[in-house]
Amino acid sequence: MDQEIPVGALAALLGGKLSDPAAAETIVRGVKPLDQAGPHDLAFLWDPKYLEAARASQAGVVIAQEPIPGAQAPVLVVGDAQGAMLTLLGEVYSQRHPEPAPGVHPNASVDPSATLGEGVSVGAGAVVDAGAVLGEGTRVMPLAYVGRGVTTGKGCVIQPHATILDHCVLGNRVTVWSGAVVGKDGFGFLQRDGRHIRIPQIGGVRLDDYVEVGALTTVARGALEDTHLGVGVKIDDHCHVAHGCQLDENVMLIGFSRMGGSAKIGRDTYLLQDAAVGQARTVGKNAIVGSAAKVLYKDVPDGGRVMDIASGAVPHVRAKRVQLCLQQLPELRTRVRKLEKQLTELREQD
Amino acid sequence: MDQEIPVGALAALLGGKLSDPAAAETIVRGVKPLDQAGPHDLAFLWDPKYLEAARASQAGVVIAQEPIPGAQAPVLVVGDAQGAMLTLLGEVYSQRHPEPAPGVHPNASVDPSATLGEGVSVGAGAVVDAGAVLGEGTRVMPLAYVGRGVTTGKGCVIQPHATILDHCVLGNRVTVWSGAVVGKDGFGFLQRDGRHIRIPQIGGVRLDDYVEVGALTTVARGALEDTHLGVGVKIDDHCHVAHGCQLDENVMLIGFSRMGGSAKIGRDTYLLQDAAVGQARTVGKNAIVGSAAKVLYKDVPDGGRVMDIASGAVPHVRAKRVQLCLQQLPELRTRVRKLEKQLTELREQD
Amino acid sequence: MDQEIPVGALAALLGGKLSDPAAAETIVRGVKPLDQAGPHDLAFLWDPKYLEAARASQAGVVIAQEPIPGAQAPVLVVGDAQGAMLTLLGEVYSQRHPEPAPGVHPNASVDPSATLGEGVSVGAGAVVDAGAVLGEGTRVMPLAYVGRGVTTGKGCVIQPHATILDHCVLGNRVTVWSGAVVGKDGFGFLQRDGRHIRIPQIGGVRLDDYVEVGALTTVARGALEDTHLGVGVKIDDHCHVAHGCQLDENVMLIGFSRMGGSAKIGRDTYLLQDAAVGQARTVGKNAIVGSAAKVLYKDVPDGGRVMDIASGAVPHVRAKRVQLCLQQLPELRTRVRKLEKQLTELREQD
Repeated sequence: MDQEIPVGALAALLGGKLSDPAAAETIVRGVKPLDQAGPHDLAFLWDPKYLEAARASQAGVVIAQEPIPGAQAPVLVVGDAQGAMLTLLGEVYSQRHPEPAPGVHPNASVDPSATLGEGVSVGAGAVVDAGAVLGEGTRVMPLAYVGRGVTTGKGCVIQPHATILDHCVLGNRVTVWSGAVVGKDGFGFLQRDGRHIRIPQIGGVRLDDYVEVGALTTVARGALEDTHLGVGVKIDDHCHVAHGCQLDENVMLIGFSRMGGSAKIGRDTYLLQDAAVGQARTVGKNAIVGSAAKVLYKDVPDGGRVMDIASGAVPHVRAKRVQLCLQQLPELRTRVRKLEKQLTELREQD
Repeated sequence: MDQEIPVGALAALLGGKLSDPAAAETIVRGVKPLDQAGPHDLAFLWDPKYLEAARASQAGVVIAQEPIPGAQAPVLVVGDAQGAMLTLLGEVYSQRHPEPAPGVHPNASVDPSATLGEGVSVGAGAVVDAGAVLGEGTRVMPLAYVGRGVTTGKGCVIQPHATILDHCVLGNRVTVWSGAVVGKDGFGFLQRDGRHIRIPQIGGVRLDDYVEVGALTTVARGALEDTHLGVGVKIDDHCHVAHGCQLDENVMLIGFSRMGGSAKIGRDTYLLQDAAVGQARTVGKNAIVGSAAKVLYKDVPDGGRVMDIASGAVPHVRAKRVQLCLQQLPELRTRVRKLEKQLTELREQD
Repeated sequence: MDQEIPVGALAALLGGKLSDPAAAETIVRGVKPLDQAGPHDLAFLWDPKYLEAARASQAGVVIAQEPIPGAQAPVLVVGDAQGAMLTLLGEVYSQRHPEPAPGVHPNASVDPSATLGEGVSVGAGAVVDAGAVLGEGTRVMPLAYVGRGVTTGKGCVIQPHATILDHCVLGNRVTVWSGAVVGKDGFGFLQRDGRHIRIPQIGGVRLDDYVEVGALTTVARGALEDTHLGVGVKIDDHCHVAHGCQLDENVMLIGFSRMGGSAKIGRDTYLLQDAAVGQARTVGKNAIVGSAAKVLYKDVPDGGRVMDIASGAVPHVRAKRVQLCLQQLPELRTRVRKLEKQLTELREQD
């Protein structure tokens, strides 16, 4: 928290009640996980599954939504423990990463035809290209690139070294992380005379309000129509959204997950780490595509939950045996079929 | 298409023949897929497999290579429907992404020892380092980096935030996409006194004519010899080509595919999404390495087609059962062997 | 080597002994692998496993630690062949990639509140943000970004287009490659009223001495505590280290390997290509997580070696058969169980 706060002040700030009034004098200086917090740290019981850790915590104070019977540390009971956590961590975060002052850094390049809303900041080395329109309070961080004709809503954050290519359309409060590439041409080719010829990709990319695009993630522009990410879509690092994909509201893509061209995902669905959805496949809403699962040959219905069969980590001697058996599985099946036949014959003889 | 075109003008432009002369008056404004096009859209039947969609299309006009009996929309028959599509889409694309004017942006950094061919453009914030030589008409887009001693042929495009490190050699019309890194040192280490010591990587990277390197793709420099990508190699986003790899003409790598050090790929071969070719492995020409397949222990011959066995997405209850069975496969095989033995004994008794 | 060297001079330089004194006059111009070297190339026998290749080599001279009976090429015997190789390759490398002269390029942006140690260089277009402190001899290459409050030790190299975000702490001789992103906020969210709400990530990132972070690799900042990479950790390209991970000394991560939040890896352990360690999992020291293995449900002990069961590349007709059998494995097991029962009954009858 970069400063010292008496627990009493914290209680007043959050409108909470201390289990032990004497704890009001305790000074806390940092936030730690329940099991690592010491007498000058603050910790949160923000999910009931951590109740045991909260009871045993040595924190200076534990913030929780209910009293914790038997807790070793003083407890500050608040109406909304998660909300209190978000508030306090947000405060620390803002201190460490203050918003840049509005204005254009002298070493930034803003094309004269670009339009900057009120309170926009453009950092050192950043480039805002011809015809771009940046909404109120948008921050273009150092060395970020905002391409020709890009438009953003209010309060977007384009992190250092993020790339937004020509004509992409961002809603309000969209965040694009470092190294992400939005609006790259989709990977579409024709074979002509034995050569790969690019199909010009004339679609765009639309990112609705509150979308977050992770570091080193690509969102390709559509072949003919826009690639579209709905309100509140959150994408982790190293992910790929191909040309023409449609992601409905609140979809979440975890690290290294990826979608082939024109794939569709319904609202509130998750792609877990390393999951893949093949070209033109559809995954319904409220679904989960498990870690490393590949949706290649069959769509996933609403509420569906699919998993990979074979990913894992097995001690290597055992793994080699299983792997060998797996390779010979068709022969094993043949042997079982033969056994069944022979046994039937034997039984008929009897 | 950002403008309105009468279908008659289109027919004249492409030298085609309209199924319904009255359609010449129709105005089209955009290009859409066959099943989404409306009365003011243009659509293409560029692959015979879409014949049914073409017949049912509500487009203002469908461009096709043959008449379409029973088509609901007017058809414009041209000699080469794919060629017409490439031409028209290319026209739209050029309007949306016009080539930058030749010249060096005042906020670019071009080292005095660099040589720029005729018509070269260097965008805002881009850096062309010492001794680089850029061929005629090459475009270095904003914030791209062209390292020391890099040479390019004619008409290359180095997209925003692409990185070409020292001494890489690019042929003509090579495209390197945003976030790609070409010429990074390969990951080669020796163990000395319990530490990882880097082996200096003194090879280079050569990208022949028409090579395309996708966004966020890495092509490492060779340890001793050059990493080499032949004419027309096309690499998608998030791929990795390690030190010393040799890719023959027209090889195509789809997203997240990757090659270990000194691996070799023959011409016209595909690595599909998430495929991997291990260190020093060879894949022949005209081969396909399927999605998620890992060529680790055995080379793939010319024309070979290999697949992963186990990737997929299965409903999770079923997936857990299969996974459990898979783990116990060696025991199942043992049980079958025992059954075979017992049955043989029984039959011998009879 | 970019220059011609008589073998005799090489022998004098390395303090070695030539098998054939007449070879001292031979001129070498390059370094090649043993099997590709010609009469004007130098080659190394740096690992005994290449003895046969060394014997057959047509190199101008082979540098080795012992005489090579029957070698076709002259042999230069030195006390430490690997050391000689590192020295000579290092020399060539330095000639090709000379250290930039100290100083700040006129087109770089160094915030007035940043502190630059002696011999620091900041390249064209690079940005060193407010409050950053760069140790002696650190090189910030063109277009690299060093965020607010970042501190580095001596001799660090921040390659072109690398991104070090606010407050990360680097030790001595740390290398961060192009496109890498260090200090991105971890991917932590809460569900509130059906929306994904970011948990502010207030931890940092600490990279100890000699750490190397590969191209297009992400190291996320901790949620509450620092993400920490110990001395000598080496990370390849396209890897991901999530929030709060702890990597002990000399851990090596090969391409596309990745770690979930708060995962821990013991010293001298390897994650091979595409390996994954799940959230909060622990891998002990001296362990190997094999290529494509996913440590999701169970920790790996010290010295453990785990493999994936099912990754591979199998001719596609065969692969489809195996895949089908795999899907029906539970049924096969049921059939075996039934056979066992029937056979038992038969034998009891007899």
